[in-house]
Amino acid sequence: MKKAAVLMGSDSDLPVLEPVFKKFKDFGIPYEAHVMSAHRTPAAACDFASGARKNGFGVIIAAAGKAAHLAGVVAAYTTLPVIGIPVKSSTLDGLDALLSTVQMPAGIPVATVAIDGADNAAILAAQILSLCDDELAERLLKMKTDMTEQVIQKDKQLQEKLK
Amino acid sequence: MKKAAVLMGSDSDLPVLEPVFKKFKDFGIPYEAHVMSAHRTPAAACDFASGARKNGFGVIIAAAGKAAHLAGVVAAYTTLPVIGIPVKSSTLDGLDALLSTVQMPAGIPVATVAIDGADNAAILAAQILSLCDDELAERLLKMKTDMTEQVIQKDKQLQEKLK
Amino acid sequence: MKKAAVLMGSDSDLPVLEPVFKKFKDFGIPYEAHVMSAHRTPAAACDFASGARKNGFGVIIAAAGKAAHLAGVVAAYTTLPVIGIPVKSSTLDGLDALLSTVQMPAGIPVATVAIDGADNAAILAAQILSLCDDELAERLLKMKTDMTEQVIQKDKQLQEKLK
Amino acid sequence: MKKAAVLMGSDSDLPVLEPVFKKFKDFGIPYEAHVMSAHRTPAAACDFASGARKNGFGVIIAAAGKAAHLAGVVAAYTTLPVIGIPVKSSTLDGLDALLSTVQMPAGIPVATVAIDGADNAAILAAQILSLCDDELAERLLKMKTDMTEQVIQKDKQLQEKLK
Amino acid sequence: MKKAAVLMGSDSDLPVLEPVFKKFKDFGIPYEAHVMSAHRTPAAACDFASGARKNGFGVIIAAAGKAAHLAGVVAAYTTLPVIGIPVKSSTLDGLDALLSTVQMPAGIPVATVAIDGADNAAILAAQILSLCDDELAERLLKMKTDMTEQVIQKDKQLQEKLK
Amino acid sequence: MKKAAVLMGSDSDLPVLEPVFKKFKDFGIPYEAHVMSAHRTPAAACDFASGARKNGFGVIIAAAGKAAHLAGVVAAYTTLPVIGIPVKSSTLDGLDALLSTVQMPAGIPVATVAIDGADNAAILAAQILSLCDDELAERLLKMKTDMTEQVIQKDKQLQEKLK
Amino acid sequence: MKKAAVLMGSDSDLPVLEPVFKKFKDFGIPYEAHVMSAHRTPAAACDFASGARKNGFGVIIAAAGKAAHLAGVVAAYTTLPVIGIPVKSSTLDGLDALLSTVQMPAGIPVATVAIDGADNAAILAAQILSLCDDELAERLLKMKTDMTEQVIQKDKQLQEKLK
Amino acid sequence: MKKAAVLMGSDSDLPVLEPVFKKFKDFGIPYEAHVMSAHRTPAAACDFASGARKNGFGVIIAAAGKAAHLAGVVAAYTTLPVIGIPVKSSTLDGLDALLSTVQMPAGIPVATVAIDGADNAAILAAQILSLCDDELAERLLKMKTDMTEQVIQKDKQLQEKLK
Repeated sequence: MKKAAVLMGSDSDLPVLEPVFKKFKDFGIPYEAHVMSAHRTPAAACDFASGARKNGFGVIIAAAGKAAHLAGVVAAYTTLPVIGIPVKSSTLDGLDALLSTVQMPAGIPVATVAIDGADNAAILAAQILSLCDDELAERLLKMKTDMTEQVIQKDKQLQEKLK
Repeated sequence: MKKAAVLMGSDSDLPVLEPVFKKFKDFGIPYEAHVMSAHRTPAAACDFASGARKNGFGVIIAAAGKAAHLAGVVAAYTTLPVIGIPVKSSTLDGLDALLSTVQMPAGIPVATVAIDGADNAAILAAQILSLCDDELAERLLKMKTDMTEQVIQKDKQLQEKLK
Repeated sequence: MKKAAVLMGSDSDLPVLEPVFKKFKDFGIPYEAHVMSAHRTPAAACDFASGARKNGFGVIIAAAGKAAHLAGVVAAYTTLPVIGIPVKSSTLDGLDALLSTVQMPAGIPVATVAIDGADNAAILAAQILSLCDDELAERLLKMKTDMTEQVIQKDKQLQEKLK
Repeated sequence: MKKAAVLMGSDSDLPVLEPVFKKFKDFGIPYEAHVMSAHRTPAAACDFASGARKNGFGVIIAAAGKAAHLAGVVAAYTTLPVIGIPVKSSTLDGLDALLSTVQMPAGIPVATVAIDGADNAAILAAQILSLCDDELAERLLKMKTDMTEQVIQKDKQLQEKLK
Repeated sequence: MKKAAVLMGSDSDLPVLEPVFKKFKDFGIPYEAHVMSAHRTPAAACDFASGARKNGFGVIIAAAGKAAHLAGVVAAYTTLPVIGIPVKSSTLDGLDALLSTVQMPAGIPVATVAIDGADNAAILAAQILSLCDDELAERLLKMKTDMTEQVIQKDKQLQEKLK
Repeated sequence: MKKAAVLMGSDSDLPVLEPVFKKFKDFGIPYEAHVMSAHRTPAAACDFASGARKNGFGVIIAAAGKAAHLAGVVAAYTTLPVIGIPVKSSTLDGLDALLSTVQMPAGIPVATVAIDGADNAAILAAQILSLCDDELAERLLKMKTDMTEQVIQKDKQLQEKLK
Repeated sequence: MKKAAVLMGSDSDLPVLEPVFKKFKDFGIPYEAHVMSAHRTPAAACDFASGARKNGFGVIIAAAGKAAHLAGVVAAYTTLPVIGIPVKSSTLDGLDALLSTVQMPAGIPVATVAIDGADNAAILAAQILSLCDDELAERLLKMKTDMTEQVIQKDKQLQEKLK
Repeated sequence: MKKAAVLMGSDSDLPVLEPVFKKFKDFGIPYEAHVMSAHRTPAAACDFASGARKNGFGVIIAAAGKAAHLAGVVAAYTTLPVIGIPVKSSTLDGLDALLSTVQMPAGIPVATVAIDGADNAAILAAQILSLCDDELAERLLKMKTDMTEQVIQKDKQLQEKLK
């Protein structure tokens, strides 16, 4: 199976990304994670992204806050799908990171998920990888069924509570 | 090759989507397009999305404006990657469609591109499909090289102009 | 009397909805409440909404956060009035839920109240049901008079304080 | 059948409201319309709203732009459901009118629809009145079926076009 | 001297308004304060505003949060200058109250100060009353000089600190 | 009677200010108008504001766009009431000018009206000057009555139209 | 004298940048201009920025729209001051470009001017270069004096007009 | 070497500015700091800015919150480059200060950094001063290399952690 990459602009973004690692373990998706900054280690970001496809990666997740350029910069150097997670920081409630990530100019897409939306970034990565991996597709379907079941259980608990 | 689906909430979104069709032709990606509304034909949307994977689709693009629910509703019924294009309408400059598309709750991702970002939706779809299609990967690389070349040409023209 | 339905996208929205239950008890309005997600249990939402009118409901309240699609999706399947409560979540201060709920495209209205505006959702539901229920209309009038009286009392307390 | 009232803060809002009149004619809903300002004719607004229920009205639509107080002021004087249409004006793209209409404090709800959302205001009014009027409920169901059919036709036209 | 009125939409706004009372005592401006709601006690607001000029008031301060209609409604019933204080509440960081207060339609101005800007509302009221009261004008000038002096002292303390 | 001053940051703001001049003529308020920039002629702004009270002015209107500092800078040099008109420019729809004008720090108020709200700036100036001028107070009352009458006429025309 | 560089993400930004070229000619500042994209020609941007200081540049202006990464990416590769011009594009009125340019994370500053603020970018560049160039400092002072004089002339014209 | 000036609108902004002082010490840049308000001590701001160039300053940093006029007012009186730090205050999350600082009208630039971006203000000041100071240029390069090295170390720690 192709690997996933998880890049973060700063190690302070690590707590936001924990759900990615958990989901990848659940799905059995091999991954690498790196602290890598569009601004502080641009050469590393360029090298990583340029070689990602031939190094066995199938998808790249990039998380960054404020003027979040990481996902866009990585996307500039690869033809792999790049998923951007805008990270909320101390001002503007994540709006700056969202717009910096999603409003990419024509030619270089970033598949953007919700602010701090690490869960969905991992699921989206799994959906992408599942196109050439039927087992993973099965696991995604099972996750979806489980999720439905959980909501049904929550509803049952609510009915108990409201009696 | 797996097919791409292009769904639009209203036929008034068609002009915004023209670049998708053009790009898909350039890339040689087979596709279907449908007018399909989360609110006016919810059953059709449900049926289409539920059967999309087994009907040979590999990725779904959904475009909608205002409280843009189409991409999210489609994503609820499939484990395929769903790409959302927020469409600008007569008020709020596309911000409503952007937030309605990108801020999906955990469990159901929508890969969101820029407001009216049809070009990038098509390229992202191609990137996703390229994971199991080396020829498409080649075409993406070529498009990227061409794009670089075009900017270099534009720069040369600017140098002429500034002389 | 027709019943009211109270739907929430997640059981984490329950605290926000407590004022609805309280108000419905005060008004003597029969109700059912359900955890039901536009994205995680779309079939349940579709079934509930499709049958709501013939199952004796007169109005539906739907509360959800982020890209809040629940109210819109429910409204797609019924001709009953649907009241949407946008719920504030961890980013963007509720603006995402507000726009996702209120900016519905032509044809499928959602009667939107303020962010986290559970009190007003319940009162609006009562106002709607009061059209065919004179006793409920009386109770609404009394609530309004009481509310006025409370403000007058608050003003008297302020006069004492300022002496 | 109970009547609907359509109030506008200024006669410049009239073009925005034309779809309301059309829809009401289609649904066979009797209505009155008035230019009535929360700020320029507050006494008229107070009188109208105070007497609306006993004068045979079942629902009130109020449209206003900028710091749109009309719906809220009318709601202060009645226990009827009040529907607010925020009207876009020359600055801020309707955001001012939306927030002024929807963010009502606890106790006095305004059922807010999208910016310039006259169609939906009329449909919502019809849905509310349909609770005590089975014929109107039928007409709403028919409108919904027609709407679905129109989207299906549009999709067929798209298929022709894409051939 | 003419009196000032201080109106608040809810007694929960009282802490925000404490600086007004303090400043009015410092300036020797006589005032009355009332809890008075545009929505819950509209008749009281109408009565108060209608009679304000002939009852000896020269300026009215009105503070309210969310869809803050109080200042606008009061301004509808008087030709006295009305100062609006938008109050920050639990969502949207005061933006809703600001736009609801400041974006008044032509004909009925509200002199709006910053969100939670009670200090400035009081000073503005004093500036207005000072037009017919030379002593108050003197006190305003003194306050301005004192304020300048305080900043100069703060700068001196900073110089000490930085040595 | 005390004079009013009308300051504009640029002569391009002149069209926005025409309603001020018209209203001042209607009210019989003597005024001076100046192009005066907080950034390009700061010394002139300082001189004008410092001497305004003793030169017979009673109120100052200042209009500016973008990072609109003019009203705040003028207010820094006077104890007269200063009315700020935020002017919409080519980007951000006037939000920048609104926040730059209204969010003044404690100590230096600016009485802010709506974006491009020249009518209301003039009326507010008249209300302020009316505190020491009973005739002007009469004229304001008459304008208010006329305004009410106009809305009533508009309503009559609407009734004709709807017949 | 050190040179200035003017970089634009796309040749469609050229009209926005014309004032920069004009101002540089007025100031006698030598410059180079290039079409250079953070996303489409990232290697060129990296090369240019890395060598800029030793190639005789003293300051770099970078203009881009939407998710405007150009200024930040250039700043990543140089210790020269980088001035960012956020360019307004077809949606969001320039807010996306503004936040993407100004909200840079700690370590890599971008000196941001107003949306489409080409004039000020050129003047800021001149101010920066003037630190080691007294003649340029003189020219800046003269420009400032001329600017003041122009406003004074505009005011005189206004006085004529108002007579 | 030319000195840097650090101006703050209020001593409450001091904690936000600590990183500036630390960075200036690291870089060996001589500086002065002052509490100086555009509104409360406008004459001091005018005097300081007017004389700054001839008093040996090469760059001015100005930090202020809310309607942040300080940087713009200082820039009005000098041809030195002025760096603006928008400071987040209790409402609107710093957006008001950002727009008031960055959206300067043509003629008077302010080099704006991120909200609360003191680190970057100091680095930008150093970059500007480095144009005539090769040693400082060296120190900036070293800081950049160190920063890169730190990110690389963080990445190594992450690799340890993920093993």
